This record gives sequence, C-alpha cells and structure tokens, in this order.
Amino acid sequence: MELLLGKPVADHISEQLIKEVEGFNNKPKLAIVRLGENPNDMAYERGAKSRCEKIGIDVDVHEFSSDISQEELIDMLRDLNNDEKVNGILVFRPLPKHIDEDIIKHEVRYDKDVDCFNPINFGKLYEGDSKGFVPCTAVAVMEILKYYDIDAMGKNVAIIGASNVIGKPVSFLLLNKRATITVCHSKTKNTSQITSNSDIIVSACGVAKMVNESYVSEGAIVIDVGINVDENGKLCGDVDFENVKDIASMITPVPRGVGSVTTSILASHVVKAYKMHNNC
Amino acid sequence: MELLLGKPVADHISEQLIKEVEGFNNKPKLAIVRLGENPNDMAYERGAKSRCEKIGIDVDVHEFSSDISQEELIDMLRDLNNDEKVNGILVFRPLPKHIDEDIIKHEVRYDKDVDCFNPINFGKLYEGDSKGFVPCTAVAVMEILKYYDIDAMGKNVAIIGASNVIGKPVSFLLLNKRATITVCHSKTKNTSQITSNSDIIVSACGVAKMVNESYVSEGAIVIDVGINVDENGKLCGDVDFENVKDIASMITPVPRGVGSVTTSILASHVVKAYKMHNNC
Repeated sequence: MELLLGKPVADHISEQLIKEVEGFNNKPKLAIVRLGENPNDMAYERGAKSRCEKIGIDVDVHEFSSDISQEELIDMLRDLNNDEKVNGILVFRPLPKHIDEDIIKHEVRYDKDVDCFNPINFGKLYEGDSKGFVPCTAVAVMEILKYYDIDAMGKNVAIIGASNVIGKPVSFLLLNKRATITVCHSKTKNTSQITSNSDIIVSACGVAKMVNESYVSEGAIVIDVGINVDENGKLCGDVDFENVKDIASMITPVPRGVGSVTTSILASHVVKAYKMHNNC
Repeated sequence: MELLLGKPVADHISEQLIKEVEGFNNKPKLAIVRLGENPNDMAYERGAKSRCEKIGIDVDVHEFSSDISQEELIDMLRDLNNDEKVNGILVFRPLPKHIDEDIIKHEVRYDKDVDCFNPINFGKLYEGDSKGFVPCTAVAVMEILKYYDIDAMGKNVAIIGASNVIGKPVSFLLLNKRATITVCHSKTKNTSQITSNSDIIVSACGVAKMVNESYVSEGAIVIDVGINVDENGKLCGDVDFENVKDIASMITPVPRGVGSVTTSILASHVVKAYKMHNNC
C-alpha cells in the first residue's frame, strides 16, 4: 500500500507559487476575517498565515468581537472589496447566529472569494468555469490525485457525504474530470456495496473509522477527508486505517493527508486572484 | 407497467397556476427573446405561448435577426431587466456564434431568469436554495416523480448524461431529495451494470433507444428525457420502449412524457418570479 502523504503535494504547490510570486510587482494580500476566538479558526489561521508568508503573500487578520453587528461586518467587507491591495478574502464560518449568512455571502466580491463563500463561485464550479474559486479542501483532494498520477477519467468514484463544502464540490470536480460519480450519504441504503464496486473512494462523512474492510475492494484508492476523534481521544479520519491498509492500493492518512494540503490551495487561490486583478 | 404520461402532470400544474394568477392584481409577463428562425425554437415558442396564455400569463416575443450585434442584444436585455411589467425572460440558445454566451448569460437579471441561464441560478441550485430557477426540463422530471408518488429518498438513481441543462441539475435536485445518485456519461465503463442496480433511471444522453433490457432491472422506474429520431425517422427517446416495457414498473413515453411538462414548468417559473417581484 502506498501512503498518499499531503506534505509533498503542499510543498510542490508552494514551490511553484514562490516562483510565481517572485515575478510579481507587488505582494499578493489575503484578508482573513475572524469573529471571536474559536480555537479551530485560530489553528487554521496560524497554518494559513505561516504558509502564505513563506510563499510571499501578506496576510492581514481582521479580528472582531463575535457581537459585531451585521451592518459593521458588511461595511468592513465592502472596504476589503474596494481595497485594491487585497486580493483574497476569507471569512471564518459559521458566523454568529445574529448575522445572516445568506446576506453576508453575497458581500464577498466573487473575484476575491478565495474560500468559495459567494454562490457565484458555486455557479462557476457547476458550469466547469475555471475562473471561479472552489472550496479549498475539495481542490486539495484533486491536487493529491494529480500529484500521485491518479487519473479519475472513466473510473468509478464513490463520494461519501454530500456537504456544500466537500462532498458536492469534490463530486463536481470529479465529474468535470469525466469520472463516474456516485454520491452516498446518510440515506443511502447500501453504501458499503457501492464503495466496494468503486475504484476510488472519497470519504467526507465525519464518522470516525466508518470505512472498514467491508467498504473497500482489493486495490482501491482511498482518500480520507474526515477529521474526527476516536474512542481514545486521538485524531482520526473516516477510514479505519489499520483495517483497510492491506486491502487498498493507496490511502491518504489522517493526520498528514488531505488536511496538510488545504492551506497551500488557499495560497494558490490568493495568487490566482492577484493574477486576475493584475491581468498577469 | 404503468405509463407515466406528462399531460396529467402539466394539467395539474396549470390548474394550480390558473387559480394563483386569478388572485393577482396584474397579469404576469414572460418576454421571449429569439434570434433567427430556428424551427425547434419556434415550435417551443408556440407551445410556451399557448400554455402561458391559457394560464393568464402575457407573452411578448422579441424576435430579431440572427445578425443582431452583441451590444444591441445587451441593450435589449437591460431594457427587459428594467421593465417592471416583465417578470420572466427566456433567451433561446445556442446564440449565434458572433455573440459571447459567457457575457450574455450574466445580462439576464437572476430574478427574471426563468430558464436558468445566469450562473447565479446554478449557484442557488447547488446550495439547494429554493428561491432560484432550475432548468425547466430538470424540474419537469421532478414534477413527474412527485405527481406519480415516487419518493426518491434513499433510492439508487442512475442519471445517464451530465449536461448543464439536464444531467447535472437533475442530479442535484435528486441529491437534494436525498437520493443516492450515480452520474454516468460517455466515459463510464459499465453504464448498463450501474443502471441495472438502480431503482430509478433518468436517461438524458441523446442516443436513440440505447437503454434496453440489459440496462433495466425488473421493477425499475425509467424516466426518458431523450428526444431523438429513430432509424425510420420517427421521434423516440433514449429508451427502447418495446424492449423494456415488460421489465420496468413505470416508464415515461416519448413523445407524451417529460417533454409535455416543460412549458408548464416555464409558466410556473414566471408565476414564481411575479410573486417575488410583488412580494406575494
């Protein structure tokens, strides 16, 4: 079994970005908007900041109390939309309950929307328009496949989970690559049978160690997007790694798999936005 | 085998719309934009006009020569966007080659975009936002399922074809209904095996009579969205009706199936737009 580690993928993407950014007249800039101090947000922010700065991308963190009013948040986003120096905007979600996400998502200018919050970018994904932005984790899955020379065209791919941020966009990206996709979820009656007939399994269901030997056929490729905690309080994926490691031909581990690639995708989106804004 | 005819579905939808429109202060209005005299466009236009007028919807046809300039077309669409009396805009596609569809599609105001041309409406479909507009034929499939009491939740549904106007939106609508969807297309290696394991088959591949007994299991439900011409020049679907009629439990015929429902969906979208514009 080949372990599909995320680090070489992230490093490869970062190296390419560093070269690109060196040729720019100015440093690209990412604005991160964080309301409150959710530890998950802050951990991701640290990783994103470190990754971006290594690449030569400036990061401004706009931190506000979680009781900021909707009007203040909108005013701030409009300032960022209009600020020519800002190329990408990332707003941590979910937003506090008194703020209407359905209004805010339209306030992130679509060509700075590096985390795919604005539905215009979902529309571009749907149409297969490469000028849009796709949720970073979904792109991370595709970049892992690309880096390890896994061609999805014509393959049977089962996606477990149908969320807007992972299951749906991964399904679309794979469909655009001409894979035959099956989307399974909590109402699916025979998930293990479907995944057993699949060449590639992408799991993003958020159930610790659900995907065991009954789900995986000999030689299948398993991409584990889950981030869960097991019965001993240890970080684990959706896949029961020990149970399937002698069956699958390739597996992304958790940690050190898909999650390690996400911030490099975010950085690549900021660079892409910079190039669109500067016609280069 | 039960024949799933389109007419009762269309009649049922029309009756409900007639009652709704009677309660309105003004008549809803659909603007149809047609460039040139494509016979298919003109046939659909006649059907749409007749259906809408029976329901109490005004239809204005804006007919132009196919050599209209892109600027003139945009000016005209902006006039329709700004015209308070116009609730829905339908632009026949494909557009002539000298006109850039990628520009024009953004010029149809999204809340008048009754035929789902503007990518904003694809974004709404993606998110499962019911305020958007979905391509009419895809909705027609869903209305047939609803009328004949076919609950897709938890069912295995194979969709043959991945076009932006049918395969993709039907897949999304079914996923939003919590069906387990598999999207097959020309690169799929085992379509007949996948469809044989499906409870419902939706075919929109445009290959005359492809779906025969090797694709359909005993008792499956078959929705045929194809409109093709057979070896004798007769209209037919993607399904070999004679070959599968004793195997499937339900089939939509072609003609008299899905195609008969489409104009009533278009009318329902104009009424939906009218209600949004008038807050009723």
